[in-house]
Amino acid sequence: MDRFECLACGQLDTRDFYSPLCPACGEPLFVVPAPRPGGRRIREERALALERFADFLPLERLDPALSLGEGSTPLVRLGRLGRRLGLDGLFAKNEAQNPTASFKDRGTAVAVQKAAAFGAGRIGTVSTGNMAASTAAYGARAGLQTFVLLKEGTSPAGLLGAGVYKPHLVAVRGDYGAVFEASLAIGRRLGIPFMNSIDPYRLEGYKLTAFEIFLQLGRRAPDAVVVPLSSGGHLLGLMRGFADLEREGLIATFPQIVGVQAEPCSPLVRAFERGLPRWERIDAGPTRAHAIANPAPPGGNAVLRLIRERDGLLAAVSDEDMFEAQAELAAGEGLFCQPESATTLAAVKKLAAAGRLRLGGGGTVLVLTGQGLKTMHLLDPARVAIQRLDLGGLEEGLARLCRPRAS
Amino acid sequence: MDRFECLACGQLDTRDFYSPLCPACGEPLFVVPAPRPGGRRIREERALALERFADFLPLERLDPALSLGEGSTPLVRLGRLGRRLGLDGLFAKNEAQNPTASFKDRGTAVAVQKAAAFGAGRIGTVSTGNMAASTAAYGARAGLQTFVLLKEGTSPAGLLGAGVYKPHLVAVRGDYGAVFEASLAIGRRLGIPFMNSIDPYRLEGYKLTAFEIFLQLGRRAPDAVVVPLSSGGHLLGLMRGFADLEREGLIATFPQIVGVQAEPCSPLVRAFERGLPRWERIDAGPTRAHAIANPAPPGGNAVLRLIRERDGLLAAVSDEDMFEAQAELAAGEGLFCQPESATTLAAVKKLAAAGRLRLGGGGTVLVLTGQGLKTMHLLDPARVAIQRLDLGGLEEGLARLCRPRAS
Repeated sequence: MDRFECLACGQLDTRDFYSPLCPACGEPLFVVPAPRPGGRRIREERALALERFADFLPLERLDPALSLGEGSTPLVRLGRLGRRLGLDGLFAKNEAQNPTASFKDRGTAVAVQKAAAFGAGRIGTVSTGNMAASTAAYGARAGLQTFVLLKEGTSPAGLLGAGVYKPHLVAVRGDYGAVFEASLAIGRRLGIPFMNSIDPYRLEGYKLTAFEIFLQLGRRAPDAVVVPLSSGGHLLGLMRGFADLEREGLIATFPQIVGVQAEPCSPLVRAFERGLPRWERIDAGPTRAHAIANPAPPGGNAVLRLIRERDGLLAAVSDEDMFEAQAELAAGEGLFCQPESATTLAAVKKLAAAGRLRLGGGGTVLVLTGQGLKTMHLLDPARVAIQRLDLGGLEEGLARLCRPRAS
Repeated sequence: MDRFECLACGQLDTRDFYSPLCPACGEPLFVVPAPRPGGRRIREERALALERFADFLPLERLDPALSLGEGSTPLVRLGRLGRRLGLDGLFAKNEAQNPTASFKDRGTAVAVQKAAAFGAGRIGTVSTGNMAASTAAYGARAGLQTFVLLKEGTSPAGLLGAGVYKPHLVAVRGDYGAVFEASLAIGRRLGIPFMNSIDPYRLEGYKLTAFEIFLQLGRRAPDAVVVPLSSGGHLLGLMRGFADLEREGLIATFPQIVGVQAEPCSPLVRAFERGLPRWERIDAGPTRAHAIANPAPPGGNAVLRLIRERDGLLAAVSDEDMFEAQAELAAGEGLFCQPESATTLAAVKKLAAAGRLRLGGGGTVLVLTGQGLKTMHLLDPARVAIQRLDLGGLEEGLARLCRPRAS
């Protein structure tokens, strides 16, 4: 049996399998690392990411048949953008190269291992986006009946990415935050583990991103890790991973963790800047950063506390800066990510200019959370410039376009 | 300097940098493996796929800054589908987990290394699909001016996936096959290496898929490898990879290679079944397998010759069977691929039933060439079933949907 802890009120071991929240204070629960007398070892020679870092995961046994080959994503040096920003070591951790093209697969992979080991024949999630597709894919892989609870009014076209895996798609009329809470209670009664955004096992999966960055940088921590911030689960998992590395004596300094929200919907940045211990419900303005527009983040207070304890930062960027950064990553480095992923570059530009980014020669890592192919509808086809030439005029036309070689 | 060979007429070393075709007979040229007196070694400890298999590649030096982290894709066992088909070892090599979400990145990565080493400040390709996106991405990554020649009438929306990287998109009025040929001559005069579908350096990149399958199966060859077939470049590269492994004494038997075309446009399958040495131009019928609908495959005759020499097979499948297989891979195994990729599963079902698939206990590998997210427009939103429930009726509604645990 795994042990759990609430970092807010100190409660221990109060979790049942169906709720990620502390029954005493409602804050997220975390898995307590099991003691491992012989120490923990990274097995770089193993093929599956879950096997490589098995010593750090709460999986008594691992069923490779449930995996889709998640993780082991590239860390790509952004030389051109780095030089432009005066940053010597700027990197992208490209989570788009996961099985369903987003970071969610790392969390789903661990949560599904647990659900299968627990004997649950069913799983569920509350999501309309990347988490819906990821959970549906892993549910199909494991042969589990899968329930995806959606916001009322989500369009069928927007659900194709999850629908292909044939889960039960259920649109729920009612407040979406209430659906999140109801899913946990109903899941317990019906025997459906709901693996939502801040499920402690999801967070265990996100830890692996920290471990891989550590290995890919040559067994050291970067100066800063910048990650889009919605529910808080991804950021909390990354911090948990670096804390594991610190506890094992593998890294000497904890990186500056930077969480990035979309300005029109940034309750955590507001609370952070005002020095508040807890976020407050806001009237969110319109933003096209749908994947991170979360006015009531369930892991928000944990994020505020841990970011302060660890000298991290929270920052907000505008939709305009986000789309500009998305275009720069594509045209400047060949990386096409979801606009929400590009908030990381937009934030780095802003923070570096303000002297708030930690720069110690260890490098800055942008975590690109998902594939640009997922959000093609946000791009404007009118901005694709196509030139038209006859075959007979092709050579002359191309010659006109050629830049001199020296440039 | 690399050496080249024409396997059709035996010509050696006649390639200039700008044409992949034998000037004597017009057939594809291949890179002759450079002698390596100390033998060739796989360096499994290296991070980049191009570094792991450097001993097998014609790259005198490798610039990691041009890589996007291509290759090293998972080999996923398809246990459920395998059991359903009576195939003990059915696997998918998931090439969708490449940087631009298709296998093309492996080829582009090698070709761009060569173009940069050659000092070309520009590159080009003739494509409207995966190759256009891949070439544009790697061109952006390398800081090269990139030209993509398109079919007249391609919609701006269909080009967004390449357009984000800001290449020069040039729609050419005129026969598309003639554009392919013209690109080579014009490229030579203007100093634009056109890395088209059967470029010998592209094929060197596709070899790595064979090497990875070999490693992932525990250093042995599978019984059969099934791959979608269009220009022939991908299949020829895979065969070249297995031939390398055979030459080094690493595999004892050459796998059965199966190339799959879409029935309405299958000039190579027709020639294969009729015993013809060369393909003939056909009047292609309508098919939605756009990525492999190639009525005039430039590598086609080489495919026919090598498939016969090596006891391989060519097969065609209907659009209906292709879409059914795409749905089965998603709902049955959690893998969402382009429909063209799913022709591999459709072909395996057909060939296994007819007793034509080699079954020796070594396993069957389907090469899934690209992400389903690339072809969302081919899915019908009307087929996404959404149930609607009130929050108050959620528990009762979900209870009705739950299958008994035993099932």
